[in-house]
Amino acid sequence: MSTDLCYRTARELADLVRRREVSARELVAAHLERIERVNPELNAIVTLVPERALAEAAAADERLARGEPVGPLHGLPVAHKDTHLTAGIRTTSGSPLLRDHVPDADELIVERIRAAGAITIGKTNVPEFAAGSHTFNPVFGATRNPYDATRTPGGSSGGAAAALAAGLHPLADGSDMGGSLRNPASFCNVVGLRPAPGRVPTHPSAAPWATMAVQGPMARTVADAALLLSVIAGPDPRSPIAIDEPGSVFAGPLERDLTGLRVAWSADLGGTVPVDPAVVGALAPRIAAFTDLGCAVEEACPDLTGADEVFRTLRAWQFDLALGPVLDRHRDQVKASLAANIDQGRTLTGPDLARAEVLRAALYHRMREFFTRYDLLLLPVSQVPPFPIEQEYPTDVAGEPQPDYLGWMRSAYLVSATGHPALSVPGGFTPGGLPVGLQIVGPHRGELAVLRAGHAFEQATGVGSRRPDLTA
Amino acid sequence: MSTDLCYRTARELADLVRRREVSARELVAAHLERIERVNPELNAIVTLVPERALAEAAAADERLARGEPVGPLHGLPVAHKDTHLTAGIRTTSGSPLLRDHVPDADELIVERIRAAGAITIGKTNVPEFAAGSHTFNPVFGATRNPYDATRTPGGSSGGAAAALAAGLHPLADGSDMGGSLRNPASFCNVVGLRPAPGRVPTHPSAAPWATMAVQGPMARTVADAALLLSVIAGPDPRSPIAIDEPGSVFAGPLERDLTGLRVAWSADLGGTVPVDPAVVGALAPRIAAFTDLGCAVEEACPDLTGADEVFRTLRAWQFDLALGPVLDRHRDQVKASLAANIDQGRTLTGPDLARAEVLRAALYHRMREFFTRYDLLLLPVSQVPPFPIEQEYPTDVAGEPQPDYLGWMRSAYLVSATGHPALSVPGGFTPGGLPVGLQIVGPHRGELAVLRAGHAFEQATGVGSRRPDLTA
Repeated sequence: MSTDLCYRTARELADLVRRREVSARELVAAHLERIERVNPELNAIVTLVPERALAEAAAADERLARGEPVGPLHGLPVAHKDTHLTAGIRTTSGSPLLRDHVPDADELIVERIRAAGAITIGKTNVPEFAAGSHTFNPVFGATRNPYDATRTPGGSSGGAAAALAAGLHPLADGSDMGGSLRNPASFCNVVGLRPAPGRVPTHPSAAPWATMAVQGPMARTVADAALLLSVIAGPDPRSPIAIDEPGSVFAGPLERDLTGLRVAWSADLGGTVPVDPAVVGALAPRIAAFTDLGCAVEEACPDLTGADEVFRTLRAWQFDLALGPVLDRHRDQVKASLAANIDQGRTLTGPDLARAEVLRAALYHRMREFFTRYDLLLLPVSQVPPFPIEQEYPTDVAGEPQPDYLGWMRSAYLVSATGHPALSVPGGFTPGGLPVGLQIVGPHRGELAVLRAGHAFEQATGVGSRRPDLTA
Repeated sequence: MSTDLCYRTARELADLVRRREVSARELVAAHLERIERVNPELNAIVTLVPERALAEAAAADERLARGEPVGPLHGLPVAHKDTHLTAGIRTTSGSPLLRDHVPDADELIVERIRAAGAITIGKTNVPEFAAGSHTFNPVFGATRNPYDATRTPGGSSGGAAAALAAGLHPLADGSDMGGSLRNPASFCNVVGLRPAPGRVPTHPSAAPWATMAVQGPMARTVADAALLLSVIAGPDPRSPIAIDEPGSVFAGPLERDLTGLRVAWSADLGGTVPVDPAVVGALAPRIAAFTDLGCAVEEACPDLTGADEVFRTLRAWQFDLALGPVLDRHRDQVKASLAANIDQGRTLTGPDLARAEVLRAALYHRMREFFTRYDLLLLPVSQVPPFPIEQEYPTDVAGEPQPDYLGWMRSAYLVSATGHPALSVPGGFTPGGLPVGLQIVGPHRGELAVLRAGHAFEQATGVGSRRPDLTA
């Protein structure tokens, strides 16, 4: 019974709680029990606050009993990414430097999720300072993929993706600079949405005007990701770039007739990136689902020239901005690949950044023009299936050697550079049973379009409903 | 009669045209006649397209005669800033390099103004590439201040401000990085609004995500500036940072009861800048108007620490981004102060820009917190009254020597660095009869609040209705 509860959707669970068919306390207890059973092997949740969660659940039940109004996530257990500040709960960012860091206040995304009635049960694992797309760090070690414990769940929202797939909680927050909401969703057969910059306002932020790093929702279904987005989106004066549209635009049903939509599909980003044949093999047959849904599908990809330079330049610059002072004080306690990124940021010149902005403008306008001809763009999320957990990063993709730890993430990070929203939705499995995500990219601020398309694809294919076998 | 028409408000003129009491052709002819009479002395409008304007006016009248729907600016003559691209009309940016530059397409702000029914009569003068706040350039020479022909009208939207004050057209577009909508409004007793970044989407733009340079409306009254803003604001996918709120939110009446508003006033930005006693002397007595309107006025100013570095760093960086290639090819044809700014941009490092972003974040949050305690902030727009036209820039302010040509603009550019909207509204006159503007700064994206306050102040004081004597 408790496992059954743990694989229900967030929307169903919220209804059950609201109708008082299941109490928040039962719901939280069921998830805590499952975490106790399943998490030691996975290491997805690295900090757990069971007593606090049960107390909050009891308070949530009392609130319902008194007939008070409740939020859309009332009584739902959630765990927050360990880079997201949580008041009174250790927030390490996977760094030994922050091993004992207990913030005084929730950051904005956590504040909003809790204000909507969700109950914090703990924190999900991340790479050190969320750098990279494989979840391991010196504080908590590595997180394992629920579909194959010898593999990585991806990252940086890797603990979140693994926890969702394992039924440890129904919703999770994450963040994404170069794919951190999408790669782990892809690797764990769950859903992650990289929204447009400003859609989910971020605070505190070292660089509140910067647009490469965003926060967003993760869930097991597209409708649940939309539900969470409806709670975390919307303006807040603490974020100067926040989009004014209220989050409520994402709260309605996602069902739409897709007939007549013009859909572009590219298995290799127009020849820009190598992709493992197992990834293409998993996705290609599923693309027909869009044809079956009435869409006109053709092979096409926007010209992504400059996207590599844009992303790598802005990423290195922002790493120095945010973490340079940390590196100065504690170089010995920062992982080498991250230190190298920060050092790279320090060698940048103003004109380097100007050049990146000029390239980014051209890229944005090419994307914008592409989306006058197409409604959606389908791509692989990741160039590779989940790789062995011992490997820091894939050093070759489809036989092509990769120069560094960003090389295998290009199918995700090139999209980041465009500023366009992108959804990772379960897209298929490799012959070995490893999950493969489909990336649905939409027009400028077109989160609703990608959510609707993702929902239709999910309903048509059913890929997302294949659960990992965690009985062993 | 024609001069009477030329000093009516845009709202009145639009009504007269809509009701067919005055034809668009009469209206344009009256303004062209006045331009012919007054402009040779002022040099505010530097390119004039009378035949085209009269033909468009005739077409506008026919449209009305056929009973077709018309836009809110139908039949109103406007001139565009000479840095704004106009299809088929020379657009020089005040640079000899662009002396014969005729764009193929209107830029977005021009496109919107024309789509609303306005009739383009010409282009207004600017400093070379809009750099600086005194309007002179090697192509067209200097623009004179309608209130004193021996003085500057300010800049960079100086031609626009002088033309408005002289009754050459009722509305004008402008742009503002460090005060270019506000200083000229202040010097010419007209209204200029620096909106929040993204409020008026800009396209094309060398750096579409950059937030220091914005475009905005100018007019002789606050209500007219709001009318123009209602036409040029609102989302467009060509600007990735465009605010989604439609421009129509600015179309309604501005009348509001200000009773109970908490208003902060600082004559010297909390001791941050020297201000000429003639400026303070003109403004200080008028501040009581807010008390009379029921506001609680007290002396206060946010802490502007870091704003200097933020503005100067981002400005130099953006100048290099936009104009570096021009300097490389034609250094001999770029004015020395601008070349120096571009060169400064080239010496910047990535960490310099990171530091500016970190300072800007702290500044933004201090401003945001300030606006939880106050509804409005009143400041002088300019630290000096209009200065002699022969002077490149004031080299001292209230006896304090200034290091460079940005020194005297700090009261405007420090506000730019905060990202908050700011209105320049006629605030008084020096004993010598030179205009002095009051700067009304509002909360994050609070353009409506500053427009309402500016309108009430304008109605209460009547300063804006004092016209220049151009009969001589």
